[in-house]
Amino acid sequence: MIIAVDAAGGDYYPKNPVVGALEALNERDDLSVLLAGPESMILKELEGRDYDEARLRVVDAPEVITMKESPSSAVKGKRNSSIVASLMLQKEGTCQGFVSSGNTGALLAASVLILGKLPGVLRPTIATSFPTLKGNRLLLDAGANLEVKPEIFLQFAKMGTIYCRDILGVDHPTVGLMNVGEEEEKGTELLKETYPLLKQLPNFIGNIEGRDIFPARSDIFLCDGMVGNILLKFGESIPESVQAMLAASMEKMDVTPEIRTALSELIQTTLDSFNYENVGGVPFLGVNGVSLVGHGGSSPRAIKNMILQAARFVDVSVNQKIVDSLNGPA
Amino acid sequence: MIIAVDAAGGDYYPKNPVVGALEALNERDDLSVLLAGPESMILKELEGRDYDEARLRVVDAPEVITMKESPSSAVKGKRNSSIVASLMLQKEGTCQGFVSSGNTGALLAASVLILGKLPGVLRPTIATSFPTLKGNRLLLDAGANLEVKPEIFLQFAKMGTIYCRDILGVDHPTVGLMNVGEEEEKGTELLKETYPLLKQLPNFIGNIEGRDIFPARSDIFLCDGMVGNILLKFGESIPESVQAMLAASMEKMDVTPEIRTALSELIQTTLDSFNYENVGGVPFLGVNGVSLVGHGGSSPRAIKNMILQAARFVDVSVNQKIVDSLNGPA
Repeated sequence: MIIAVDAAGGDYYPKNPVVGALEALNERDDLSVLLAGPESMILKELEGRDYDEARLRVVDAPEVITMKESPSSAVKGKRNSSIVASLMLQKEGTCQGFVSSGNTGALLAASVLILGKLPGVLRPTIATSFPTLKGNRLLLDAGANLEVKPEIFLQFAKMGTIYCRDILGVDHPTVGLMNVGEEEEKGTELLKETYPLLKQLPNFIGNIEGRDIFPARSDIFLCDGMVGNILLKFGESIPESVQAMLAASMEKMDVTPEIRTALSELIQTTLDSFNYENVGGVPFLGVNGVSLVGHGGSSPRAIKNMILQAARFVDVSVNQKIVDSLNGPA
Repeated sequence: MIIAVDAAGGDYYPKNPVVGALEALNERDDLSVLLAGPESMILKELEGRDYDEARLRVVDAPEVITMKESPSSAVKGKRNSSIVASLMLQKEGTCQGFVSSGNTGALLAASVLILGKLPGVLRPTIATSFPTLKGNRLLLDAGANLEVKPEIFLQFAKMGTIYCRDILGVDHPTVGLMNVGEEEEKGTELLKETYPLLKQLPNFIGNIEGRDIFPARSDIFLCDGMVGNILLKFGESIPESVQAMLAASMEKMDVTPEIRTALSELIQTTLDSFNYENVGGVPFLGVNGVSLVGHGGSSPRAIKNMILQAARFVDVSVNQKIVDSLNGPA
């Protein structure tokens, strides 16, 4: 199993991708990594570190795609970037997966352009983990498709079901359609047309509302990329905001330093369930390959988890299952 | 100043509306209330209570619109309901405002049908207060208009600005357009067409993202009713969910009774900023009158605040300002 790692993406390259890759090698003996990026920079970062040289290869890709760069120009203009070079290697069969904490737009565009779509897939989607009271559940689309047609929603539901079950480890995941009310006749014309299509899925539980996310009334929250992206970013802001609110209240309370410390610890532990590091990355579902993107600020631990997640994606043949699900008998 | 109060709406009628109305009378000497609903029920609730009889009148409206009832059939079929009767009295000039914690859909439909729209208004909107780190700010549309055209967004921004300034008390409120990124070219075609229209407003700060809500990067969060309703209900679920998460963490930790007590107090204080009771109700902006709806579970205090909010709405001539803003020179 060979996974390519973008060593020139995210806010802390090359260090975090390099360290994360070495940590991943320590966790799986059957894993090899390709570190893609400016060679000299990567070699310098590797200097003095202890690792199995037989399982690590540096791929020189001197061009760097920045976080703010326009996806299409980056992909077309920078053939020697870590993203393009890694995906080309995957396309040729040199590796089986790719992870990056770089420019999401560029990564999505390059993944679709270079790897192509799986047979039968109308539109690839970004599926993201969302913390709930029951653990991480799946929100999709998270921003790749701002407008979604009914038959595309149906595909998203099928792809999400497989990912949620096989990668997030949720038994018999259920699908809910984000809407403004539970009743079938609620929502826009588009959602009203989508509902009957989704009913053909045995795991569709109907419409869900904003209040159903945290209690995870369904395991998959199906929505267009506009709703998904706004929810995702709002959700990501909750821990910091809640912490700020709690801290401000604590200032006003008359408590001993011991209690203050205990409360801070408790809050920290609790909000850690929101920590993206535990998940690692989010996949582009529907591309003909394995491509995951992580948070720009990914720590080595987050990148390690993203690499292991990509490897599991390959292990359990998520893509073959998607093809079977979309093209097989309903 | 006379405000009609729906004494047959919400989860706890007639008690909470009756008690809330009496509390409001105690706060403003120049206020009178009409209590609308089944007369015998209201009179029974008033029995033995101390209030200024000259400032309270019961309007017998024996038909009750339930929470689950379809708005249009309720409005057309129940002419003798508290909602329809109160709005008719407002239309005739017998009172200046109406508050209800009943069926939002029925209330919106009846308000538009009976009161009509203000001159120049394309679509009335539901504007809701949203708790942020800076205090309550304004989210609109919150579910009345699932699809919004650019010129309607512009009107929402203008109406929201007046409400946010004159009722929520925010000096020089700014408008942000909810989107998936900050850049002008982000989002759907609809949002791309809306952006240049909004630029004519001196208080438009551009696109905002989900992460900008809690820090209140703008004071008004402008979105369609689909995004707004999902965000609103998700937001409402945060206090209970965070509380459950903190309680679960506490169970796992070995904490003293003192810490347990301190934590409960801390959570209570902090999450109180999310308490809808502090706000009271949300207005239908753009109708030719004053009509506010509150949470179904509204306490007497919430209803009192909603009545005072309706009175302030009249005091500061929100509607006249809206008409001037929409029809006057830009």
